[in-house]
Amino acid sequence: MSPGAVTRQDGPLALICGGGSLPLTVAEAATAQGRQVVLFLLRGIADPALATHYTHHWIYLGQGGKFLRLARANGCRDVVFIGSVVRPALSQIRLDFWSLRRVPRLLAAFRGGDDHLLSSVARMFDELGFRLVGPHEMAPDILMPEGALGHVQPSERDRDDIAFGLDYLSVTGRFDVGQAVVVAGRRVLAVEAAEGTDQMLQRVADMRKNGRLRAPVGSGVLVKAPKPGQDRRFDLPAVGPRTVDGVARAGLAGMAVAAGSSIVAEPEKLVATADRAKVFIFGASAAAQG
Amino acid sequence: MSPGAVTRQDGPLALICGGGSLPLTVAEAATAQGRQVVLFLLRGIADPALATHYTHHWIYLGQGGKFLRLARANGCRDVVFIGSVVRPALSQIRLDFWSLRRVPRLLAAFRGGDDHLLSSVARMFDELGFRLVGPHEMAPDILMPEGALGHVQPSERDRDDIAFGLDYLSVTGRFDVGQAVVVAGRRVLAVEAAEGTDQMLQRVADMRKNGRLRAPVGSGVLVKAPKPGQDRRFDLPAVGPRTVDGVARAGLAGMAVAAGSSIVAEPEKLVATADRAKVFIFGASAAAQG
Repeated sequence: MSPGAVTRQDGPLALICGGGSLPLTVAEAATAQGRQVVLFLLRGIADPALATHYTHHWIYLGQGGKFLRLARANGCRDVVFIGSVVRPALSQIRLDFWSLRRVPRLLAAFRGGDDHLLSSVARMFDELGFRLVGPHEMAPDILMPEGALGHVQPSERDRDDIAFGLDYLSVTGRFDVGQAVVVAGRRVLAVEAAEGTDQMLQRVADMRKNGRLRAPVGSGVLVKAPKPGQDRRFDLPAVGPRTVDGVARAGLAGMAVAAGSSIVAEPEKLVATADRAKVFIFGASAAAQG
Repeated sequence: MSPGAVTRQDGPLALICGGGSLPLTVAEAATAQGRQVVLFLLRGIADPALATHYTHHWIYLGQGGKFLRLARANGCRDVVFIGSVVRPALSQIRLDFWSLRRVPRLLAAFRGGDDHLLSSVARMFDELGFRLVGPHEMAPDILMPEGALGHVQPSERDRDDIAFGLDYLSVTGRFDVGQAVVVAGRRVLAVEAAEGTDQMLQRVADMRKNGRLRAPVGSGVLVKAPKPGQDRRFDLPAVGPRTVDGVARAGLAGMAVAAGSSIVAEPEKLVATADRAKVFIFGASAAAQG
């Protein structure tokens, strides 16, 4: 679906906002296209600054009934999920009666891994008459472009490691596991699963410190890619300045993410951070992912 | 090759001994079969107690020329590698002139990951007129048998996770990456790469502590298997009492290893530890690995 097709839809866009700076970026892009937005800010998770400029409602994660009522009252049919929701604390979750009745269905979905959970939520929205829209459909600029983003370019050896990492991720995708891997000299140093990218990068940094990794500092690549068949309307892999910090601390040469299907948060700050740390940020083309 | 075929060979067996208790087990099994053994104890790595009962020589890791001379002087043709050599410290390595000349070849092999390094070493031994023998060919009892080793049995759900984990490992094996994974409810919680099994289990324990994992304590399985095509003459995955401690600390239900192609260190202590911690130790049959 092209951005134009979405903006031609009637009614305001419901933006369910998690953490980080991406919700603001998407809200700005949507309004720049003449689309009215209504923000649903997740309590304890979304940035309170978002409340300043937009029509908004604060909801707890789990208040499905409240969202339903307010979204309908505001005439919203299109819904975008945007921002991070990293394993929320119990204090950030409140199940209203509507959600409580759907807990068994969600628990059944949860047993099957993240993808199952997300596609169940997506189906639920469809059934309720909403249309789930990908944030990149409203704001194409948030997607990673092809090639190097900053001044540092990957070497031939880095490109070889990038291809190796993308190959690995394409094979493990069907297991609904993490979307990132660290490769150096065709050797897989770390694989992300439940711990998340930041923790995995910290592990590589620790292994360098305790001598378990002998690869010279400035070698090795973080490779991130969406799982094959992943629902791109939410949960696209995202990178931001914090990822670059992690890459630099781990002593890697840089990071590669799938161009066109990864989200870049705070691109200016990301590039400045990468150039300062002398690491590359590379958008790998679909051809390289084949 | 059957154990009988090996014992019919003439001359004493050269046992290159790393750390842990397995070298003693293999030395005892070989002598019980009437085979004379000569131990080559890796300095700073092998247990000094081994020196008490057997003909032995202390060598540094990297003293290839010294090994060659002594093994030939002792009339050894068959060579067994046994015991752990976990990323040795530089102080434990001394390259003699013979080894120094082969450094470029080994470095080229190292670039390709553990498997390439090991198969290069194996080929080098072959070329020198030695025959590399698997420790399990001398001591079949060190291999994991099929079924539960202790009193605790895996549940239906655990068996499902075991099959899922074995499937994952069979797919990633060609990337020459780690040989272990933690699975709970068909969700991959952790994948081992350069950090090793103990570190991966510690990570799962940490994620439980910091709330990143919500799976109840007593659920989840560690699954270990050899890489497809791995040279079984050395580097078979090994489990011991310390692995069981890690599994218990990670709050898992138990662990499964490939029967017939994983080594069990200190089996009595391992079973006692597992029964006390109420975790299962399961030898998965080749059929389950298909």
